[in-house]
Amino acid sequence: MNTSEALIGLNLIAGLGSVRLSRLLEFFAVPEDIFKASAEELTRLGLNIKSAQAIASFQAAALEAEISSAAKLGLKIITLFDQDYPENLKNISGAPIVLYCLGSLTKEDACSVAIVGSRRASIYGLNSAFKFAAGLAQRGLTVVSGLARGIDTYAHRGALKAGGRTLAVLGSGFNRLYPPENKTLAAEIARQGAVISEFPLNTEPQRQNFPRRNRLISGLSLGVLVAEAAKNSGALITVDFALEQGREVFALPGKIDSFTSTGTNALIQQGAKLVTACEDILEELFLPLDKIKNSSAHCLPPAENLLFDKSQAKLYHCIGESAVSIDELVEKTEFDPAQLSGLLLDLRLGKLIKELPGKYFVRN
Amino acid sequence: MNTSEALIGLNLIAGLGSVRLSRLLEFFAVPEDIFKASAEELTRLGLNIKSAQAIASFQAAALEAEISSAAKLGLKIITLFDQDYPENLKNISGAPIVLYCLGSLTKEDACSVAIVGSRRASIYGLNSAFKFAAGLAQRGLTVVSGLARGIDTYAHRGALKAGGRTLAVLGSGFNRLYPPENKTLAAEIARQGAVISEFPLNTEPQRQNFPRRNRLISGLSLGVLVAEAAKNSGALITVDFALEQGREVFALPGKIDSFTSTGTNALIQQGAKLVTACEDILEELFLPLDKIKNSSAHCLPPAENLLFDKSQAKLYHCIGESAVSIDELVEKTEFDPAQLSGLLLDLRLGKLIKELPGKYFVRN
Repeated sequence: MNTSEALIGLNLIAGLGSVRLSRLLEFFAVPEDIFKASAEELTRLGLNIKSAQAIASFQAAALEAEISSAAKLGLKIITLFDQDYPENLKNISGAPIVLYCLGSLTKEDACSVAIVGSRRASIYGLNSAFKFAAGLAQRGLTVVSGLARGIDTYAHRGALKAGGRTLAVLGSGFNRLYPPENKTLAAEIARQGAVISEFPLNTEPQRQNFPRRNRLISGLSLGVLVAEAAKNSGALITVDFALEQGREVFALPGKIDSFTSTGTNALIQQGAKLVTACEDILEELFLPLDKIKNSSAHCLPPAENLLFDKSQAKLYHCIGESAVSIDELVEKTEFDPAQLSGLLLDLRLGKLIKELPGKYFVRN
Repeated sequence: MNTSEALIGLNLIAGLGSVRLSRLLEFFAVPEDIFKASAEELTRLGLNIKSAQAIASFQAAALEAEISSAAKLGLKIITLFDQDYPENLKNISGAPIVLYCLGSLTKEDACSVAIVGSRRASIYGLNSAFKFAAGLAQRGLTVVSGLARGIDTYAHRGALKAGGRTLAVLGSGFNRLYPPENKTLAAEIARQGAVISEFPLNTEPQRQNFPRRNRLISGLSLGVLVAEAAKNSGALITVDFALEQGREVFALPGKIDSFTSTGTNALIQQGAKLVTACEDILEELFLPLDKIKNSSAHCLPPAENLLFDKSQAKLYHCIGESAVSIDELVEKTEFDPAQLSGLLLDLRLGKLIKELPGKYFVRN
């Protein structure tokens, strides 16, 4: 057993907790020596009997199985002592000792911004998350989020569409990817960044994992943007971690009568920076000069156009707040009816427009 | 000529300016003595020749005509030295020496909050202005605004509907009331507060009068709430005055892609307090204790219900973001078709809903 294997092994033992873990690692200069200790020795160091016995009776086979499963999934396991362990994470309290990682982590990922928010978000929140993610990615920043439904999904998609980098942090093990419908998205993310989990492969997406996951989302990032969140949203847990970790907190304002903006508006009242554009975020972060230069040199397409292909965008712009008939759309867009039907379906599936009786369409 | 008449006379002389006016009033212990001075004396005090000659050749007949016209309109003319001159206004730089006033000013109007914003506002802005005005009025505060189209109109209406007090400050003389369609509203305001102008009766609603008008709106108030404003909105001039006068500034947040909220969102970025409820305003103001007691003792109906009568409210709540047919509405509301038609018309005229082809209705 080498050091990395020892850390992976320790991470497999349920209920150890980061405080006890770091106490163990401080006491034993060489991590693999932990597994040579007796249960009695370990309890004397403050471990409860259950954990102490779990370590003392640890089976190398379990470790080998985990490592070989990870390899089969194409995962890299990065430990706290590895060179490519993310710099931003090292500084947080309770930094994970192990990261399972699909894809790659680069030095540039130190310039990350997290975009988080409600799973049940409005079109406004989703579109905003997408646009900010695309905008930040275009400027060379990495977008971090949690692969969840709603805001997270749109944040990852925005960064991907802009050709930028994005990191997704899981609240489960890789064998229990959650939510299941984001499997394809996860694969795309791995090609332009990484999917990361501190949980052993078979860990279920249990409730209590998500706050832990959230501390990594903020921990990996220089700042956290809350795109949309109600007052009781889990996204606000990420904000608590961000504040504890000394990271910037940004929030999008919303209408005062919109339930899904009650949390973000309250954050602004409490001191989070109200942002209306990517520049509002960039000017708060201490970014390396060459990054900033790069961003002004770029000739950026408007982020909203990234949401669609050209035909979809053209059609979307013809559908306004008032209902418009299919005949009017044929006339305005000059698409043939078959093409138009296909495009209308795309936009409806994307929940960007809805159909009204009599073949009328209106923005959602 | 007595002191009041002298001040009214001075106010009739165009282009005197507040700096020169206060210099004159400082020099002449008795204001009426100003009219006994020669043009030469007055130019020696820093007046330009035109103003000096206008004072020296001032015709008592003009003054008498103004005073008798004001009386015929039912106006009271309050001067800087009168007991009922508003306390809050006395402290501002360039306080008007004369206020034409329809209605009444009370001591309680010292607890005023201004609600201002764009003339071209969205339904969100208008409804919010109405609700905040109603809420503040219900809590015993006076709502100050500028009788303009858009936000101002809804602010006055909200305060009136709640049975509270409201003050409207004009940018023209009473004989040139602007905008003309708000004549009835002005009459209602006069019954539950006052319409106020510092301009002689025949003053046209010229562009340059409105910034001057705005300094009175903030000057009369403890704080200014900007309900909705684009970045170039005249409402932001009121904010500048508020800051200069040491008054609180509040702003409603809005969607980042809403043009009419670009100004309010920017204000929040610059330090204005984001508000989502009347309490956010009350807690910043130093109000007499008995006011606050009163407000918590009240049993307040929700402000949104004030916008409509009961039947209108019931119908409005049945019409959502998705289109709903007239048949569904009959079923949901249990109104008979004739009553329903009438109510639908009310809501359409109020621009709260719109009709789609095929007798479908949707919120605006």
